[in-house]
Amino acid sequence: MIIITLIKTNNVYPLKKDKKMIKTDIIIIGAGPVGLFAIFECGMLNMKCHVIDALEHIGGQCQALYPEKPIYDIPGHPKINAGELIEQLTAQAEPFNPVYHMNQTANELTENTDKSWTVKTSADTEINAKAIIIAGGAGAFGANKPPLENIEDFEGTSVFYMVGKRDLFKDKRIVIAGGGDSAVDWANSLSEIAEHIYFVHRRHKFRAAPDSVSKLESLAEKGKVEFIIPGHVSKLSGEGGFLSMITVDDLDRNSQELKADCFLPFFGLAAHLGPLENWGLDIDMHHIKTDPTTAQTNKEGVFAIGDLATYPNKLKLILTGFSEAAMAAHAAYPLVFEGKELHFEYSTSIGVPA
Amino acid sequence: MIIITLIKTNNVYPLKKDKKMIKTDIIIIGAGPVGLFAIFECGMLNMKCHVIDALEHIGGQCQALYPEKPIYDIPGHPKINAGELIEQLTAQAEPFNPVYHMNQTANELTENTDKSWTVKTSADTEINAKAIIIAGGAGAFGANKPPLENIEDFEGTSVFYMVGKRDLFKDKRIVIAGGGDSAVDWANSLSEIAEHIYFVHRRHKFRAAPDSVSKLESLAEKGKVEFIIPGHVSKLSGEGGFLSMITVDDLDRNSQELKADCFLPFFGLAAHLGPLENWGLDIDMHHIKTDPTTAQTNKEGVFAIGDLATYPNKLKLILTGFSEAAMAAHAAYPLVFEGKELHFEYSTSIGVPA
Repeated sequence: MIIITLIKTNNVYPLKKDKKMIKTDIIIIGAGPVGLFAIFECGMLNMKCHVIDALEHIGGQCQALYPEKPIYDIPGHPKINAGELIEQLTAQAEPFNPVYHMNQTANELTENTDKSWTVKTSADTEINAKAIIIAGGAGAFGANKPPLENIEDFEGTSVFYMVGKRDLFKDKRIVIAGGGDSAVDWANSLSEIAEHIYFVHRRHKFRAAPDSVSKLESLAEKGKVEFIIPGHVSKLSGEGGFLSMITVDDLDRNSQELKADCFLPFFGLAAHLGPLENWGLDIDMHHIKTDPTTAQTNKEGVFAIGDLATYPNKLKLILTGFSEAAMAAHAAYPLVFEGKELHFEYSTSIGVPA
Repeated sequence: MIIITLIKTNNVYPLKKDKKMIKTDIIIIGAGPVGLFAIFECGMLNMKCHVIDALEHIGGQCQALYPEKPIYDIPGHPKINAGELIEQLTAQAEPFNPVYHMNQTANELTENTDKSWTVKTSADTEINAKAIIIAGGAGAFGANKPPLENIEDFEGTSVFYMVGKRDLFKDKRIVIAGGGDSAVDWANSLSEIAEHIYFVHRRHKFRAAPDSVSKLESLAEKGKVEFIIPGHVSKLSGEGGFLSMITVDDLDRNSQELKADCFLPFFGLAAHLGPLENWGLDIDMHHIKTDPTTAQTNKEGVFAIGDLATYPNKLKLILTGFSEAAMAAHAAYPLVFEGKELHFEYSTSIGVPA
């Protein structure tokens, strides 16, 4: 595994110049669970992959939003935490030597005269391949932001919509807002290392795994998490990108000021496709339309799998994305190896590379 | 879990009389990996299942033919033995209290005037449900048999096409024939308890997992397994259903007689649908045609998933069957709960029954 990660400095990722064009068999956009399994399926068919992801870490939402959340519907795993699932999928992809390009979005798509495709990322990385598998989950292109006018001034320094490095929050005073799994899970997790956690939510009801809610309530009883419910964040104050104070209102607009270094609003993921909207793909309500048996989009060689892909009766389940990954890999094979017939073999007969 | 198993006596399963009609939400035909996962998916949607299987044990081919074979392409399991996968899937289905009817085939399908279906098994069990999910793997209705005229005289007593109870083979002299995973795996496994194993195969090449072949060859070197290669079984001798001698010919028709109690021919699974051929389903080359996004057959309320189901670009992978199980469960829901709207919830939010 090769991971190429851009390091953000002063809120801007440095763009590299004079890069060579990278050539590979398949470009996978999205390193979440479904993208990771696509590496494996392509690998089993001898196709090499480069993977592009907007986040800093492999694993998509599973890793960034709810690594400790138990998932019950992965076949063959009666119960597995999202983070552990990502570990297993990363290990499963590993024998095929994927190259991960992290912290950059896939911005431009160009069709070449030799029927190959070139993708250019926000870091000016250019990758050429015979096929592209778009495996971004719905909401891959950003979180829903609270309507606070100066919030962008603090993004990446004091305001985070996902947790990349947990250690960044050591000894901090953190305001977490939201009522879903991400808010609850991260309050539980960060309470172990933060100086103080305020948990701001509109009402005393959570849309989260029952076990996680119980844990949160027990932390609140012990004073390790401070509930400010009902409440919502109304103002951010600070200087130079660093927060110092967060104002929270209750339903009667009574305000209180909280001394805080960090603000983590978890209000779900935005339903838009970002730069992919302009790739000429058939789009239906912010989802990419695909053939349900090949995962191919309206463009030959461009596939979409997982929550971002849609067709009649589509189920937004991780296990559905896994199946679509296998379909896309098999459908891409004749494009990558022109004229070569695919001899179907079971993994049990051929094994995986040592 | 309730398991209802018929006990075979004198080569005949006793038929029960005066049974009451069983009523349930969903009838699943086939207790292999895909059928087991269908129980889970139905259970998550509050639908109860009765499961019918021709074998004595849960797990289908995975359990009966190659429990110790490693599988590499189950998402989230970089490597898992087939038997272990079955254990995991059985545990995953368990909270939903499935009832398993083993050792009987689903023979007759009747459509009732209330839009429900009744399935009658070879044991005269009658089950009524709003929907049926056929999850038999290809070959669920029998193994390919070697062309030996009196082989049926010994079936179930000395000749076995699958291994149900491993202990039956303790201290026996066994002839195993074939060159695939099943032959190799069972030679390896039974060598631990058998008195002697003859391994008869046409040529010195195996279509099996490399690790298993290495193990077999090492057992042959140590004398724990005796290779008779090239060779094929030409005659079975014995009395009262019990084998005493097996004749093996080489390519030049030189014969040798082997003192043996048991014969296990592993020549793959027969490609026919058994009684299902007469259910009025659209069939294509021994496979049941389905809608690739709902898994429904040409009959409303009858679904087919896994290796037995076909549609354009179909991949015969276990993980594909898992996805089809989810589709079938969701498509069956409005038939089971007429008029009730399905509120989609993630397993992470609702958990599973304790």
